[in-house]
Amino acid sequence: MADEKKLTPRGQDFSAWYNEVILRAELADYSPVRGCMVIRPWGYGIWELMQRALDDMFKATGHENAYFPLLIPLSFIEREKKHVEGFAPELAVVTEAGGKALEEPLVIRPTSETIIYAMYAKWVQSYRDLPVLMNQWANVMRWELRTRLFLRTSEFLWQEGHTAHATAEEAEQETLTILGIYRRFMEEWIGMPPITGLKSESEKFAGAVRSYACEALMQDNKALQAGTSHFLGQNFSKQFDLKFQSEAGREEYAWNTSWGVSTRMVGGLVMTHGDDRGVVVPPRLAPVQVVVVPILHGDEGAAAVREKAEQIAATLRDAGVRVRVDARDNLSPGAKFYEWERKGVPFRLEIGPRDLESGQVVLARRVVEDGAKRKEFLAEAEALADMPARLEGFQTFLKERALRRREEHSHRGVKDIGELKEVLDGGGGFVYTGWNGDPAVEQRVKDETRATIRVIPDPEFQSSEAPATCVGSDAPARMEVAWARAY
Amino acid sequence: MADEKKLTPRGQDFSAWYNEVILRAELADYSPVRGCMVIRPWGYGIWELMQRALDDMFKATGHENAYFPLLIPLSFIEREKKHVEGFAPELAVVTEAGGKALEEPLVIRPTSETIIYAMYAKWVQSYRDLPVLMNQWANVMRWELRTRLFLRTSEFLWQEGHTAHATAEEAEQETLTILGIYRRFMEEWIGMPPITGLKSESEKFAGAVRSYACEALMQDNKALQAGTSHFLGQNFSKQFDLKFQSEAGREEYAWNTSWGVSTRMVGGLVMTHGDDRGVVVPPRLAPVQVVVVPILHGDEGAAAVREKAEQIAATLRDAGVRVRVDARDNLSPGAKFYEWERKGVPFRLEIGPRDLESGQVVLARRVVEDGAKRKEFLAEAEALADMPARLEGFQTFLKERALRRREEHSHRGVKDIGELKEVLDGGGGFVYTGWNGDPAVEQRVKDETRATIRVIPDPEFQSSEAPATCVGSDAPARMEVAWARAY
Repeated sequence: MADEKKLTPRGQDFSAWYNEVILRAELADYSPVRGCMVIRPWGYGIWELMQRALDDMFKATGHENAYFPLLIPLSFIEREKKHVEGFAPELAVVTEAGGKALEEPLVIRPTSETIIYAMYAKWVQSYRDLPVLMNQWANVMRWELRTRLFLRTSEFLWQEGHTAHATAEEAEQETLTILGIYRRFMEEWIGMPPITGLKSESEKFAGAVRSYACEALMQDNKALQAGTSHFLGQNFSKQFDLKFQSEAGREEYAWNTSWGVSTRMVGGLVMTHGDDRGVVVPPRLAPVQVVVVPILHGDEGAAAVREKAEQIAATLRDAGVRVRVDARDNLSPGAKFYEWERKGVPFRLEIGPRDLESGQVVLARRVVEDGAKRKEFLAEAEALADMPARLEGFQTFLKERALRRREEHSHRGVKDIGELKEVLDGGGGFVYTGWNGDPAVEQRVKDETRATIRVIPDPEFQSSEAPATCVGSDAPARMEVAWARAY
Repeated sequence: MADEKKLTPRGQDFSAWYNEVILRAELADYSPVRGCMVIRPWGYGIWELMQRALDDMFKATGHENAYFPLLIPLSFIEREKKHVEGFAPELAVVTEAGGKALEEPLVIRPTSETIIYAMYAKWVQSYRDLPVLMNQWANVMRWELRTRLFLRTSEFLWQEGHTAHATAEEAEQETLTILGIYRRFMEEWIGMPPITGLKSESEKFAGAVRSYACEALMQDNKALQAGTSHFLGQNFSKQFDLKFQSEAGREEYAWNTSWGVSTRMVGGLVMTHGDDRGVVVPPRLAPVQVVVVPILHGDEGAAAVREKAEQIAATLRDAGVRVRVDARDNLSPGAKFYEWERKGVPFRLEIGPRDLESGQVVLARRVVEDGAKRKEFLAEAEALADMPARLEGFQTFLKERALRRREEHSHRGVKDIGELKEVLDGGGGFVYTGWNGDPAVEQRVKDETRATIRVIPDPEFQSSEAPATCVGSDAPARMEVAWARAY
């Protein structure tokens, strides 16, 4: 029901705003199980649209979906040394089943490399069986101490792709293809343009040779790692005996990649576009793109207004618009406006008895540029005909606004830790500096600033002039890196 | 790669045939985790199409998807007495997480009534918040001693719908609406027409007031429970304090329903349509409906044939057909035919250099009626234009064949246990008899025949003349029931 209490403003307490907006937009709720959330229909509807779009992109690039077991023998996880070091502290362990203690404990998958490569080893004999390009949509479990709705929960939903290739080059190419898909999805669907690049050794996936990531900037100027793509080399194939006979007749280990995005992206969407009125959902991911609200004054013309509202909805639906008529009779129009704004529906059409006579509707836009009007009267025919274009325009507006924010909060030319700290404390964002590549230096900068290297940026994000010196030492820079405080 | 070894014929050992056909069609595979299977891309593709169709039907009837936690506190499961009695022996229990012993053990959901109604209790205050109509697509875990691929595995994928209503009548109506959706889906999509009806008290869901089921007949004349829909009354709402203020201002407990179908249906599909050559997938659920195989004789005209194959595929794709060109050059045409037949693709188009000249193609149909030709030459244009209609015709053919089988193996007029046993031992199927309603009689018949009451049939499945006497006693019949040996 309408809860007219105002949200904590973002500027006052971003973290409080985030939790409130998610609960009150009914995206998700806390559950009685520590660290596990419930994804409510509005949040799940966004996730379903994310899934559909990504799934189409995966399939268009030759990937197939499959499903592997939830439970993994503990001994599998332990086989790849770095992998178990990374995941052991977060495992949930099944020790009893069917009324008996298990001989070997089973862990709930924190990620599925081990079980999946064990299966590939069974299916792959020859180079003819390669590449294997599979993806699974699944729940995973990483027991977290401090949890945040969507951003860090003990259980979360994701997709995990796992591929096997005959050559290192082909696997590396796959890693980058997927990074490109993630980036395009975040730009064009979430309107959350990330920077991309390589992770430093200390930040890479447990078991990977190289990890690439998409890092997006939130409105509090903290970075969100929103998707990762890993080149695993032969680390897992050697442990799981994933061999094939090459075209030349030699026995070789396969080259693997793995990559994933999760419901965390819903949190990213909220922190990229939301405002002090609530969530703002980009049209391509909005379960409802247009809500039609009949404005009734008692019974006067009510039936005709309701009929017109349904007719408008039908016209929009035929044009491919996701539309809902909010005909609830136990709620005032104002309460409905408030609810749908809080949920972030891009457009609202209001229709009353007088509009019926004049052939007009009121169109309200969830977000406007500074100074523009939120509401306007439009001829009905025009409002309906233009709607698909308006939705696309709104989508572009959100993306460009986010891109502007990111660029406004990207800092270059920072020379030392003092300057870095100053920038981070004075607003934050991405800070590009030189680095000599030494992990000890990385650690010291991190300790002093609470920022981490988000990525070693891909060429298009690199500064026009490469930094000459390392931010944390007197050594010359060996590369440029992007720092940020992060989720 | 092509394994030309013949399948065990169904008539020789149905159970061996079933396992072989699933492994060799690459629908699924055994995993290193006891009782848990891997669903391979061909099997998962069928499941995805099942999901899409059912999801559309749920949404068209006002249901929304959501997601609830995998782990449930043991104390929740224990709250509804019958519920815990039913599920306790099959629970998988997490006792450690994040490196520590848990204070309260968490079970992996065997079904989610308890956690879901606990959440509804938080969300529902007034009759205005009702009905709540939610569904979730999820994995569940029931630790089984004897497992069968798709039919009974410790982990399986399913959907579970959970609804809350203001009145018993509305909840009962929901239960039946869903039963109707399940039945229509099984008839029109799987081509596996089930009988429907009420479960006896001994066979109902643990915690339900009444359970309804769809029961389909497999080719070995055993019944498969393929979907269930439960009227839960107020059993769970009372335990989880799911109350609402009624329109009259009274505090009342909500009325619940729950309902589910699972990947078990993939097993049903296999056992309904499969033959000694492999799986047969109904066109509406076939990830590939038409496979195009270019027939190449060395390099002679190879490029032109390949181009024609792609062109044919593009034409079919534009007509909404799911088509794949099998252009692998390391496999003979015969090996490809064999592989796609085993996987159950409805139609195959062959195209060779001479066909190119004559404007013909060869069309092969996966299953034909007795005496009909499996292969025919067709003018290319005709073959392409007719394909959508042919696919629908094939779909109908499979459904009608399955319906005929079911009716041929439905036995009526059986009077006593001796006759019942004779029919079951002499081929089996559904056997309709009278029953006095006494659970002790039901148990005795079960012990003597290894058959169970599958349903108390809905009116349209009842015999034209109601049985007068009980099959297991001298008492008059109080109702008609359908017996079968079952999976």
